[in-house]
Amino acid sequence: MEKLTEVVSKTPLLTGSSVAAKRAEIRNYFHHTFSQYESLFDCINSDEAYYVRAEPLRHPLIFYFGHTAVFFINKLLLGKYQHQRVNERLESMFAIGVDEMSWDDLNSAHYDWPSLADTRHYRNQVRHIVDALITDMPLSLPITQDSPAWLILMGIEHERIHLETSSVIMRMLPLKYLDAHPQWAACSQAGVAPTNSLLPIAGQTVTLGKPSSVATYGWDNEYGQKTVDVAPFKVAKFLVSNGEFLDFVQAGGYQDAKWWTSEGQGWLEFTGAIMPRFWRYQHGEYLQRNLLQEMPLPLDWPVEVNYLEAKAFCNWKANQTGRHIRLPTEAEWTVLRNQLDTDQPHWSQAPGNLNLEHYASSCPVNRFEHQGLCDIVGNVWQWTESAIDGFPGFEVHPLYDDFSTPTFDGQHNLFKGGSWASTGNEASRYARYAFRRHFFQHAGFRYLESDSAEVPVEPVNTYETDELVAQYLEFHYGDTYFNVPNYPQACVQALLKHTPELKHARALDLGCSVGRASFELACHFDHVDGIDFSARFIQHGFQLKETGHTRFAIPTEGELVEFKEVSLSDLGYSELADKIDFVQGDACNLKARFSDYDLIFCGNLIDRLYDPSLFLNHIHERLTAGGYLVLTSPYTWLEQYTPKDKWLGGIKVNGENVTTLDGLRRLLGERFNLVAQQDVPFVIRETRRKYQHTLADMTVWQLK
Amino acid sequence: MEKLTEVVSKTPLLTGSSVAAKRAEIRNYFHHTFSQYESLFDCINSDEAYYVRAEPLRHPLIFYFGHTAVFFINKLLLGKYQHQRVNERLESMFAIGVDEMSWDDLNSAHYDWPSLADTRHYRNQVRHIVDALITDMPLSLPITQDSPAWLILMGIEHERIHLETSSVIMRMLPLKYLDAHPQWAACSQAGVAPTNSLLPIAGQTVTLGKPSSVATYGWDNEYGQKTVDVAPFKVAKFLVSNGEFLDFVQAGGYQDAKWWTSEGQGWLEFTGAIMPRFWRYQHGEYLQRNLLQEMPLPLDWPVEVNYLEAKAFCNWKANQTGRHIRLPTEAEWTVLRNQLDTDQPHWSQAPGNLNLEHYASSCPVNRFEHQGLCDIVGNVWQWTESAIDGFPGFEVHPLYDDFSTPTFDGQHNLFKGGSWASTGNEASRYARYAFRRHFFQHAGFRYLESDSAEVPVEPVNTYETDELVAQYLEFHYGDTYFNVPNYPQACVQALLKHTPELKHARALDLGCSVGRASFELACHFDHVDGIDFSARFIQHGFQLKETGHTRFAIPTEGELVEFKEVSLSDLGYSELADKIDFVQGDACNLKARFSDYDLIFCGNLIDRLYDPSLFLNHIHERLTAGGYLVLTSPYTWLEQYTPKDKWLGGIKVNGENVTTLDGLRRLLGERFNLVAQQDVPFVIRETRRKYQHTLADMTVWQLK
Repeated sequence: MEKLTEVVSKTPLLTGSSVAAKRAEIRNYFHHTFSQYESLFDCINSDEAYYVRAEPLRHPLIFYFGHTAVFFINKLLLGKYQHQRVNERLESMFAIGVDEMSWDDLNSAHYDWPSLADTRHYRNQVRHIVDALITDMPLSLPITQDSPAWLILMGIEHERIHLETSSVIMRMLPLKYLDAHPQWAACSQAGVAPTNSLLPIAGQTVTLGKPSSVATYGWDNEYGQKTVDVAPFKVAKFLVSNGEFLDFVQAGGYQDAKWWTSEGQGWLEFTGAIMPRFWRYQHGEYLQRNLLQEMPLPLDWPVEVNYLEAKAFCNWKANQTGRHIRLPTEAEWTVLRNQLDTDQPHWSQAPGNLNLEHYASSCPVNRFEHQGLCDIVGNVWQWTESAIDGFPGFEVHPLYDDFSTPTFDGQHNLFKGGSWASTGNEASRYARYAFRRHFFQHAGFRYLESDSAEVPVEPVNTYETDELVAQYLEFHYGDTYFNVPNYPQACVQALLKHTPELKHARALDLGCSVGRASFELACHFDHVDGIDFSARFIQHGFQLKETGHTRFAIPTEGELVEFKEVSLSDLGYSELADKIDFVQGDACNLKARFSDYDLIFCGNLIDRLYDPSLFLNHIHERLTAGGYLVLTSPYTWLEQYTPKDKWLGGIKVNGENVTTLDGLRRLLGERFNLVAQQDVPFVIRETRRKYQHTLADMTVWQLK
Repeated sequence: MEKLTEVVSKTPLLTGSSVAAKRAEIRNYFHHTFSQYESLFDCINSDEAYYVRAEPLRHPLIFYFGHTAVFFINKLLLGKYQHQRVNERLESMFAIGVDEMSWDDLNSAHYDWPSLADTRHYRNQVRHIVDALITDMPLSLPITQDSPAWLILMGIEHERIHLETSSVIMRMLPLKYLDAHPQWAACSQAGVAPTNSLLPIAGQTVTLGKPSSVATYGWDNEYGQKTVDVAPFKVAKFLVSNGEFLDFVQAGGYQDAKWWTSEGQGWLEFTGAIMPRFWRYQHGEYLQRNLLQEMPLPLDWPVEVNYLEAKAFCNWKANQTGRHIRLPTEAEWTVLRNQLDTDQPHWSQAPGNLNLEHYASSCPVNRFEHQGLCDIVGNVWQWTESAIDGFPGFEVHPLYDDFSTPTFDGQHNLFKGGSWASTGNEASRYARYAFRRHFFQHAGFRYLESDSAEVPVEPVNTYETDELVAQYLEFHYGDTYFNVPNYPQACVQALLKHTPELKHARALDLGCSVGRASFELACHFDHVDGIDFSARFIQHGFQLKETGHTRFAIPTEGELVEFKEVSLSDLGYSELADKIDFVQGDACNLKARFSDYDLIFCGNLIDRLYDPSLFLNHIHERLTAGGYLVLTSPYTWLEQYTPKDKWLGGIKVNGENVTTLDGLRRLLGERFNLVAQQDVPFVIRETRRKYQHTLADMTVWQLK
């Protein structure tokens, strides 16, 4: 094993002029990380300790010791840079962590963990493999996301995440299992907590998201871009200290449900917590557990809590002060972060207790001040009100497609700024990590005072995974296949050819599904109503109109999926939202207000109605004089949608074949002229290799 | 109503030099038919009689009186030559007859039939409409199947069929309802039955099927062509007379089950029949019911029976004589028919009691002799051993797609030659009518003696209507869509590119479905085994190999279908049948004898196996050294076929995406080299407008 000679490391730039030098830098960064990780585990003084389940929601440390090595191999196999497994058993056991496990979803599986010696041996094997790969891999600069070097950096940064999470688990391990270690020494300063105060911050517009021009490794969730208007607020000068939080504890804050969210109350009940996780109360004295030792509660160090506790404190504090006290949002935190103009790897020294450049513990909350504000970054992570979500433009990295997407569920809140143990990407400006709100890390919080009771967070844009809905989102907004043009667009283009130019006209998109034709119609009509029977489908049209974005996951093969996002701006529909209303409704029983349309478009509707004749016999009532009814359908009658005695065609009547077009002529012929008819093809993707390819019949009927 | 002035009519030629003359000829033929039909009903002396259900398996006569008129309107609507219904209620009630109803499938529905006056009025309306259409329709010569004149002829010939079937029903009506009519007078000659004898007929090859060059109207089932080698036989000089049949009756033939087929026994039990349907036994005397009168049983007239009775007689006769006595097949009857060199409409007088040219009843069986043989045509229809089937080349007429196809079920036997009441197409050489074997018409039989106990009939090529099987037949043998080449062909073409030319090689087509790839492989290999798990599918490959033909019906829209036929000769596979064996089998558990293959092709198989790993781990045992395994699949894993824990890919393993190709490499990589990989697209038709369009992945593996 190579020895760790230099404590401080920095994530490499992706750019450079010398490939050889970059290769050496990456190799150095790899070994530094691999060794620093092992040096943390060197603090453990017995093999037994590796198998202790210090925290019931996490695997024992042996898992994490093996996991970061396995990750390299698994990703290299996936990227086809490695062709054989090194140790199938270890690579299976050490593959999947339980970081996302909830307190209400305990894992009681029995694991027959490998020995420490075997795991060490495995780590050494992997070290050699990765070293050899770094030596031999093709490399050109700058490094891009499809380069093998990016995968190496992914493995390294992944290990740096676990360097910190493992240090958190070690804080839960009995001290008898741990020895002091010169590289992992705590801060020795502690004193009285400074009195907090609120500093005014001007309102401003901030842009979130890591620009692709920033030349360091980033996780997928950091990219994309979002601009947010931030209202003025006042922010606490200091992170909440142990001393400040003690008031809440001593005021009975953990015993009074009213400060806690319902999720927080559930957690309190489950854990029976009465104080922060790393405090202990003994013989009339509070103590704090650090990585390798315990000390009297350092009142001027930041308190370490989960989101639920931080939120409860704010609610209590708001009640105490009569002010709108809460946690910052991601955007508000970014306003503060922007007061620092430096970032890893460019700084010569970290502008806070960060990147293992100062202590292997927290330190007083007044140690690092910048323009009157302390601990803008570092010391402990700062919980935010924002559940993590991808920014517009978010794209999943194909070789780690479940790093972020499972956390876009509204249950994972972001924390920002990094802790003393945050290194590499974690210590960078754009880092975005999110955990379940009950989780512990080296994390605390800063509060702010807002003018408004409202918390300016948007609902999370979760991935639609309902297979049918996602299939229709792809059908309406996704890629084209077999060179068949987008169907809702092609339908609208086609119907416009058969209708005169209408001024200030109103259109109804009946059976609008996820809404694409409504947007396309809104390019040409003053107002469009989009109506669908299924709220499950129409919610996506509504969400696009309201937020400009929607997301979905579509199958590629078997249970595997790919992740997609669409935005109104990419579709060229940015200015149309005001012209469209999406409403749930029944085409066979429309509310009276849906009338006076110049055009009614029914895309793939009639063979999905429970009573198509009822619909067709009354639809003229909704049209203006001379108005148009446009039907498209492949006439795929199915008894699950339409009882057979209601089919318009595709049946024998008195022994003779009757087609749906015959049925349409019979029902509509009296009131309408059939002015045009044409085929419109469409393709619906089922998997990466399987599609429905269909020819709809479009008929254009004008009211006589 | 126009009066019938001329009794004898002939079906028009489709050819001619004067359009005006042809129009006049068709108009005349139409009115003659319409009037002759009404003149038959004129024999009925009370309205009440129209509503009597003389035969429980048939509608009352009012239905038939209206039906032939409705048929004109329905077909003209279907052909878009008529645009409005004349009387919706009548056209619904008179649309569907029950000629196909079985004695074991009684119709007990209640019908509220229209009045006779309304029906007469309706007939008059239709007469005017059709007359006007004949006057105005576009007409060019020769008349072809897509011409409106063809539809008019279809309506006329349809009415001529019912002229005869109605006369049969009237023979079941109590005599009190009927008056004598000069145009419908029975033969008055009757006497002792002549003694039958057997005349030798030389073996010969006959061609069945109406050539398209024959310039008269024909039903769809008459066209196509089939060549049959007929062995020498001896044939009865006379149709079986009442006198000859009386021996069977008096010998207790109706009481002795052993002469009857099992179907015949069921019919006997249901009806309790003890003699032919038109006989009556009263006061020690047998009587025969004719159309309008009853007479002492005319012993020298042909007996009228259904197939079941005719067959029982032959079995009894065979037993009596110790010879192979049976009914003729269609081909054997055709050998006899070929002794007459004339046909309608060319003859000046009918060469038998046919076409209403002689009597409105049967006549003595020795009245019309030709080269020693009597009643080659006419008098009564002659039952055959042949169940009706389409000839190779059969095509359904699109405006009457259920005239023949429902009768290709092995339960409808042909009768030939026509009766005294057969006119128009019925009286022509190529006419092919078939009824359920228990049905009564003016039908009897002639027997023959064969050298062999075997009856030379082939199983009926029924239409496959199972939707999935028919879909696969179209997929393998049918049309191409979206310009995507035929898939089994494309797969074989592609795999040949990746494998060296193999001499005297053996191939296995595993998962062969309906067998196209097996035929295609047989073009290049000395022997091919086609194996599929499903007997339902593989039977069609087997049928193609054995008979050269297979038939299926595929959905167009809703419940409507189109009918398809494929033949080995059209596909260019005529010479291959001997090289292929089709066998039912399980790919995961193959019998030992399926081995020593130079190539194994598995088209769309692996994602349909219950244990694909088991299959892949053993398939090398079936290959010769250096042999090839070719897999194609879209990797559409479904739990209904393969339990999820058996999927080769499309799953997460240890948290990482594993594709099916990854899985194949893992399982096959040790024993095989992957020598080629390419996409092969395919299209499966679901309806006329809806298709599955899929990209299979083809991988070619060579045994190391």
